[in-house]
Amino acid sequence: VIQKVTVIGSGSWGIALANLLATKGINIKIWSFSEEEAKILNEDREYKDKLPGVILPSNVHITTDIKEAVEFSEFVIIVVPSQTIRQNAKIIAPFIKKDSIVVCCSKGIEEGTGKLLSDVLEEELHNCKIAVISGPSHAEEVAKGIPTTVVSASRDIEVAKVVQDVFMCQGFRVYTNNDIIGVEIGAALKNIIALCAGICDGIGYGDNTKAALMTRGIAEMARLGVAIGAKKRTFAGLSGMGDLIVTCTSMHSRNRRAGILIGQGKSLKEALEEVKMVVEGVSATKAAYEMAQRLGVTMPITTEAYNILFNGNNVKQAVKDLMQREKKDEIS
Amino acid sequence: VIQKVTVIGSGSWGIALANLLATKGINIKIWSFSEEEAKILNEDREYKDKLPGVILPSNVHITTDIKEAVEFSEFVIIVVPSQTIRQNAKIIAPFIKKDSIVVCCSKGIEEGTGKLLSDVLEEELHNCKIAVISGPSHAEEVAKGIPTTVVSASRDIEVAKVVQDVFMCQGFRVYTNNDIIGVEIGAALKNIIALCAGICDGIGYGDNTKAALMTRGIAEMARLGVAIGAKKRTFAGLSGMGDLIVTCTSMHSRNRRAGILIGQGKSLKEALEEVKMVVEGVSATKAAYEMAQRLGVTMPITTEAYNILFNGNNVKQAVKDLMQREKKDEIS
Repeated sequence: VIQKVTVIGSGSWGIALANLLATKGINIKIWSFSEEEAKILNEDREYKDKLPGVILPSNVHITTDIKEAVEFSEFVIIVVPSQTIRQNAKIIAPFIKKDSIVVCCSKGIEEGTGKLLSDVLEEELHNCKIAVISGPSHAEEVAKGIPTTVVSASRDIEVAKVVQDVFMCQGFRVYTNNDIIGVEIGAALKNIIALCAGICDGIGYGDNTKAALMTRGIAEMARLGVAIGAKKRTFAGLSGMGDLIVTCTSMHSRNRRAGILIGQGKSLKEALEEVKMVVEGVSATKAAYEMAQRLGVTMPITTEAYNILFNGNNVKQAVKDLMQREKKDEIS
Repeated sequence: VIQKVTVIGSGSWGIALANLLATKGINIKIWSFSEEEAKILNEDREYKDKLPGVILPSNVHITTDIKEAVEFSEFVIIVVPSQTIRQNAKIIAPFIKKDSIVVCCSKGIEEGTGKLLSDVLEEELHNCKIAVISGPSHAEEVAKGIPTTVVSASRDIEVAKVVQDVFMCQGFRVYTNNDIIGVEIGAALKNIIALCAGICDGIGYGDNTKAALMTRGIAEMARLGVAIGAKKRTFAGLSGMGDLIVTCTSMHSRNRRAGILIGQGKSLKEALEEVKMVVEGVSATKAAYEMAQRLGVTMPITTEAYNILFNGNNVKQAVKDLMQREKKDEIS
């Protein structure tokens, strides 16, 4: 039984997960990048900006000492911005114990290499057991105890089951899945579709268009996933369809907000300046487009998104093109 | 090439489809049950209550003479309330030409028999070619030309392709699928999940819960479908996931509205009195529960819905029970 857990990263998702596990009686050490953030959390026990109203139990301790944090336990949750995964893994590596379980709760694809985050962790952390947690899970709702389901994925199903046991509790139901590739691809590529959902909203299209986009979007995500070894049915699950639904219908998604601006006629540059935050869907579009080209996978929505974002194509023309492709059977 | 089409039923979906085909140059005869409705439509060319702003082209004619309507063409669209399908098929039968294509655009399962609507049509209309159209398609949006996708399904893929050709146009993309069972089961059972989505909203749960409900809901719909001969992957398509998304997120769904009232603590009777309309999810829950019992299919969400609706079970306890089922693998 796991009694101590390390959480690398003190964003809202990291804090929500730390709080959940602490409530189960597990002792938690959170590593924060920021001295100031660590001080606030240790003193106030609440991070008012990120998760107002969530008071961390006394068995949660926050540190900025990476050695202290990593050596604290053999169950390490990584929940840092996706493009900092490799550099964070490198600073963790010297201190991590052999056979530790490392759970990646960040989502994305490494820019430049196109690698899955679990593969980045495999490369940097030797002799560890890698798993990921994914699914429709707004941190704010998890922190409030609103019923939430996720999937714990690992190539080694026994590792996935240990992770399931550690997290599962009344408001948080965890399923296992050994298709880590499918789970990570779904988590990373959903932001492309969220961006496109925003574009549709920006143009003024309706629910029919968005449902079509999501349904055909998951179909092409699955095609790319299968081409790199994922199982198709994973995309019908919580980390695929489930997470896609939450992301595309959320008012809070930056991807959707950026998309709305683009749908209204702004350029990518203008939209990003206005949103003022990292819009993961942009890099995900680039990564997926390049993978699809390399592997010869047909991804009509991603291709149109790529051409809108990077070649200045017209958004309405893109929708017309998608609607007027050759007639098709749904499942072939 | 099809140049004449009969539409049986003058609800908003029937009118939206008639309008779409008429715009393509096809001559349309709509049969309406109501003298008054037929008169309004023929004179005003607009049905202000149902689809305000949609002006029917001059090649649409409305009649209350079933013989005239059915004998008008060999391509008949049936779009009547689902529980009136059999009686309507019976009055059509004497006039329908051999080898006519009959497209069912109603959705549901026949009460009492538990039969699919296409099977009801097969029983009542001999020597016809039966197809169905389904997918995320609010009539109001189709009427406005908002980009919409649907699936045309028939056991005979060649029939599905003819239907695809008839309907496909710039704003309306049609995919084919030969899994008519899967398409119809998805269309009928989505209302169970929409009702449950409403219940979650009524309790005050969030997006995480609803996304979980939809994802696990489609999984159990697929299990039931497969048990009666459907293909699993159809449920990941437009008539499954696509239609489910539109129905569960729509503010207009009666199923969702009834669910919200039940989630707030009202009984089924009270909720139905307040909504004052047919709530298909109620009969769908009963039909699916009975099918699942008979076939030995596990449908945890449908079972909880059945017990809430018909046995007065507590809604919050139902959610707790669902969250605390034995630990599971996602795709097994």
